[in-house]
Amino acid sequence: MNDSGDKPVHMTPEEFRSAGYAAIDWLVDYLKEIEERPVTSEVVPGEVRSSLPEHAPETGEPFQNLLDDMDRIIAPGITQWQHPDFYGYFPANSSPPAVLGDLLSTGLGVNGMLWATSPAATELETHVLDWLIDLCGIPKRFHSSGAGGGVIQDSASSATLCAILAARHRINRPEEIMKLRAYVSNQAHSSAEKGLLVAGIHHQNIRLIETDENLSMCLENLEKAISEDIEAGYMPFFVMTTVGTTSSGAVDNVEEIAKLATKAGAWIHVDAAWAGSATICPEFRGILNGLDLADSYAFNPHKWMLTNFDCSAFFVADAKPLTEALSIVPEYLRNSASEAGEVIDYRDWQVPLGRRFRALKLWFVLRSYGAENIRTYIRRHVQAANWFAEQITDHPKLELSVTPSLSLVCFQHVDGDTASEQLLTTLNATQKVLLTHTRLNNKYVLRVAVGGTYTTLEHVEALMQLINEHLEI
Amino acid sequence: MNDSGDKPVHMTPEEFRSAGYAAIDWLVDYLKEIEERPVTSEVVPGEVRSSLPEHAPETGEPFQNLLDDMDRIIAPGITQWQHPDFYGYFPANSSPPAVLGDLLSTGLGVNGMLWATSPAATELETHVLDWLIDLCGIPKRFHSSGAGGGVIQDSASSATLCAILAARHRINRPEEIMKLRAYVSNQAHSSAEKGLLVAGIHHQNIRLIETDENLSMCLENLEKAISEDIEAGYMPFFVMTTVGTTSSGAVDNVEEIAKLATKAGAWIHVDAAWAGSATICPEFRGILNGLDLADSYAFNPHKWMLTNFDCSAFFVADAKPLTEALSIVPEYLRNSASEAGEVIDYRDWQVPLGRRFRALKLWFVLRSYGAENIRTYIRRHVQAANWFAEQITDHPKLELSVTPSLSLVCFQHVDGDTASEQLLTTLNATQKVLLTHTRLNNKYVLRVAVGGTYTTLEHVEALMQLINEHLEI
Repeated sequence: MNDSGDKPVHMTPEEFRSAGYAAIDWLVDYLKEIEERPVTSEVVPGEVRSSLPEHAPETGEPFQNLLDDMDRIIAPGITQWQHPDFYGYFPANSSPPAVLGDLLSTGLGVNGMLWATSPAATELETHVLDWLIDLCGIPKRFHSSGAGGGVIQDSASSATLCAILAARHRINRPEEIMKLRAYVSNQAHSSAEKGLLVAGIHHQNIRLIETDENLSMCLENLEKAISEDIEAGYMPFFVMTTVGTTSSGAVDNVEEIAKLATKAGAWIHVDAAWAGSATICPEFRGILNGLDLADSYAFNPHKWMLTNFDCSAFFVADAKPLTEALSIVPEYLRNSASEAGEVIDYRDWQVPLGRRFRALKLWFVLRSYGAENIRTYIRRHVQAANWFAEQITDHPKLELSVTPSLSLVCFQHVDGDTASEQLLTTLNATQKVLLTHTRLNNKYVLRVAVGGTYTTLEHVEALMQLINEHLEI
Repeated sequence: MNDSGDKPVHMTPEEFRSAGYAAIDWLVDYLKEIEERPVTSEVVPGEVRSSLPEHAPETGEPFQNLLDDMDRIIAPGITQWQHPDFYGYFPANSSPPAVLGDLLSTGLGVNGMLWATSPAATELETHVLDWLIDLCGIPKRFHSSGAGGGVIQDSASSATLCAILAARHRINRPEEIMKLRAYVSNQAHSSAEKGLLVAGIHHQNIRLIETDENLSMCLENLEKAISEDIEAGYMPFFVMTTVGTTSSGAVDNVEEIAKLATKAGAWIHVDAAWAGSATICPEFRGILNGLDLADSYAFNPHKWMLTNFDCSAFFVADAKPLTEALSIVPEYLRNSASEAGEVIDYRDWQVPLGRRFRALKLWFVLRSYGAENIRTYIRRHVQAANWFAEQITDHPKLELSVTPSLSLVCFQHVDGDTASEQLLTTLNATQKVLLTHTRLNNKYVLRVAVGGTYTTLEHVEALMQLINEHLEI
């Protein structure tokens, strides 16, 4: 590197190639040996920063310095989300073809905001989302051959926000924003509430509907809330149903909720962020019953379909309210393809303007694995979770908190919250596994979300053994 | 690959390594030979899709198939944003260290939503954004040692939205949302209007302030609009000033605007999405005069600081209104580090919950190049643009539309709009270059945004020659 001020120094192609190989080597070796690492980091707040120099360097450093610091600072400072003994939250899937598809996307460095700014980025995205419709038995009304289609959002949070904005636009009463009411179950993801607040919906206009004994939205409560609101002069504009809640995997009755919502004129969004990937297996498709009545649907291949974050598949039956809500066309973005109306401009399907070529990684995953392998992948996780749930059922000190849902098992200590909390703390303190917790029916509950890319039945068996050791069984 | 339903087949580490090398080779060769490609694609709407199979494959395909299709379908179907003769919009920067930093981020696959979910992801982000403060002469009030700090957003659109949400929260009159008024110049980026609409601000409450002869926000008009609105019972809550507009690179008078806005109680957001990178050179820092009076500031290293999209650096002087606006804490995200208040949880600094480890690529860029090389990089672009502007000034058939701003030159044909539009069409039809257009002072204008990673004076000279050929000079 020089600092003479004459020419900036980029890596030459051959330096890039050799640094690229070194980065690939670092990554492959990291993943190969990940099971030898603690799942969680021991760093305390401020520790990572204290190992970094106060100022950026004036002159460039060799690439090897960076890889050395990946070993020295970064790898020990993160939670190993790709560790097969990671059972927290929901896993963030990753896989070799996804990583490499994303690498090529990064390298191409295109901005797919408009069809015209990179046609293949838009068309591949529309196409692979149509593939997902076929693969997962998603109703044809969401296919791009109709009035709607699919788009990749960064997260289910953003998909929900877009659904809210489309719903708000469809009502088209901006001056009556204080009259709009939204309905989600009290088990729905926090992003629903966040998205509504972002969209200017007042807290008091967000109705958190109580759930039934299965932690699914209670139909009677929803019906009552909607009637009361209409009577009081409010306009129900948005109902979100959850297929697989974060806490417990509970599944709302989409069909009956959608009927109620439609009668009230509200937009129905179905959030299956985690569970949606399972529908690639026909035997799990029952959770989508009623989806043909919904206005929008989202699930995250980045949770459980081997595709790196960010990749949330968002579908609308009719794109018009969405694009009308989000389209603003300054002169500098005008172009003949858009004006001919022949193309999709995805910037009108999302909040930000710019967008990465995220379809590439999903395309790589679907082609590298093939549908059969992905089905097998999902089934193995569900089988492992079922095995784990059986152990809990037969366990002297543990009990299931709710019926397990797909690959998510929630359980508790029979001695109550303190014992449950202590068990979680003890397990996580080993740094051999990571579990997270929630509260269900007012009880402290441990969650085991099976779904890591490399998590197998053998890992789940080892988790059970670890639990039993700590319970002295 | 098997389809027996027994075990899912992942690439082995050695298969991953060899596919990884192949992907690196593909990418390095693509970039090495990019100048031999047309800058823009010839595909017509639907053409890319027509070369893709209707359904996803049932069984997996070898990785080489994917690389073959990168050559066959993807590379010819995109706009080559990394081509040095790309002068459209603003360039989307990319560089070898950024690509490789992002590769490692993708491979680690961590979700940095909370400090606890990967401490190093959060701490490195806070740290490198503090580095940017030093490097770019950004006021210390945005440093993380105070009440605020920096965060990486996906885009300046999202940064603006977050500023709007913080501003709206600070007013804290949700039931009076129809009384809130926002002010941006009519040259401001369309994302300001979009963000305001997303936040539930009614169209009629968005005041597009006329600009002066430099296309900067006119202070008198702003002052008048604010007074009128206060008198009519409205609450000014948000003023965005632009440092380097998209159309022409115009710079608002941040200092005077901020004084007016502060008096009115409004939040001041400064959007320097493109121009902000230039302030790494002390001689360009004048554009930030008055920034010490602002509440928030954003610029995009992904535009002009060698870091791949998405990387928008967003700074707030006081994080409280932002995090209060965006924080919702469900049980399943509670953790001791957050509750002790010792850490930053970046999910409260953005709209989505999940987040990639984007700081890694920025860290790689700052260290691999070093500040000196980045300054040189910026200066060379500005010099090349200045050279181009001089040619236009002395040109018999062309004239500058406005004074050039940093590396952006806007010009027009002396014969008027039709001739200008035809020149653009002819130039772009060669597929040797890409320029885009805008309208300034009601004239059709060609934009040359110099700023591609590999764009040098020699490329700009060739562009001038191409222009002269077409003008028969």
